Amino acid sequence: MRIIGIDPGYAIIGFGVVDYQGNAFKTVEYGAILTQPESDFLDRLTQIYDDMCYLLKKHRPQAMAIEELFMGQNKTTGIKVAEARGVILLACRQNNVPVAEYTPLQVKSAVTGYGKAEKRQVMDMTRRILHLSEIPKPDDTADALAIAICHGHCAKPDY
Amino acid sequence: MRIIGIDPGYAIIGFGVVDYQGNAFKTVEYGAILTQPESDFLDRLTQIYDDMCYLLKKHRPQAMAIEELFMGQNKTTGIKVAEARGVILLACRQNNVPVAEYTPLQVKSAVTGYGKAEKRQVMDMTRRILHLSEIPKPDDTADALAIAICHGHCAKPDY
Repeated sequence: MRIIGIDPGYAIIGFGVVDYQGNAFKTVEYGAILTQPESDFLDRLTQIYDDMCYLLKKHRPQAMAIEELFMGQNKTTGIKVAEARGVILLACRQNNVPVAEYTPLQVKSAVTGYGKAEKRQVMDMTRRILHLSEIPKPDDTADALAIAICHGHCAKPDY
Repeated sequence: MRIIGIDPGYAIIGFGVVDYQGNAFKTVEYGAILTQPESDFLDRLTQIYDDMCYLLKKHRPQAMAIEELFMGQNKTTGIKVAEARGVILLACRQNNVPVAEYTPLQVKSAVTGYGKAEKRQVMDMTRRILHLSEIPKPDDTADALAIAICHGHCAKPDY
């Protein structure tokens, strides 16, 4: 099963594409969509949508895994992240890619076996599970790969 | 100048299309996009996007006016509204329709001359400015028309 994990945002959107087969992961591609702070917000949304469509058409994943959004302290930033998340979900639906949502606790549990694991521990386990020599940068990319691993472990076998 | 006003949401999205010329408004079309609660959220997002694209192509407005979003008590609902707002903004950008944002205070001031006007007063003034026999239903449609009026009054003459 090919899975794309996404760490949503509007400045940096981490992505990680993995193949999960026979209880093992193979890393296909990972990185981040970056939008320019000096760009109009509508142009940033459009770029996120276009880049997501490009990635989905390129890799044809069977599922997209994304973290559930929680509204934190900074509500203005939170609204923009949610608006960007909306266009990411739209791109998935239009490309017939089913979406699975996970809480941070589910992701941490799936990757480290412990729901309250430190961020660093999650990243290091992600690196080891994917046989990477270094933790991918930026953090958003490592987070996206962790979400993809979570879906591999959580999705039903007949998915 | 043709303006489309939008009251964003994910269950009911009010819209109002008006022409503003020589200090007078002409109502072109108004109503609401309705999505089904029993539908998958991604399908609702896709319908909102498709219906918005249809309205923008049909009426070719010179501007879309929309209220700034504030995160209220119900954060889960707020996140979904913001996700829907994201696909509405995307539809505008893709159809080359510039977006103007207004606060509720700006809308109330533009329609009634008083920033703390009651909702009912705003609706009744909207009805009178547009020479309608009744206040449009649902409320989201009346709100969308008020935002369109606000943009007519606030936009620069050479817009």
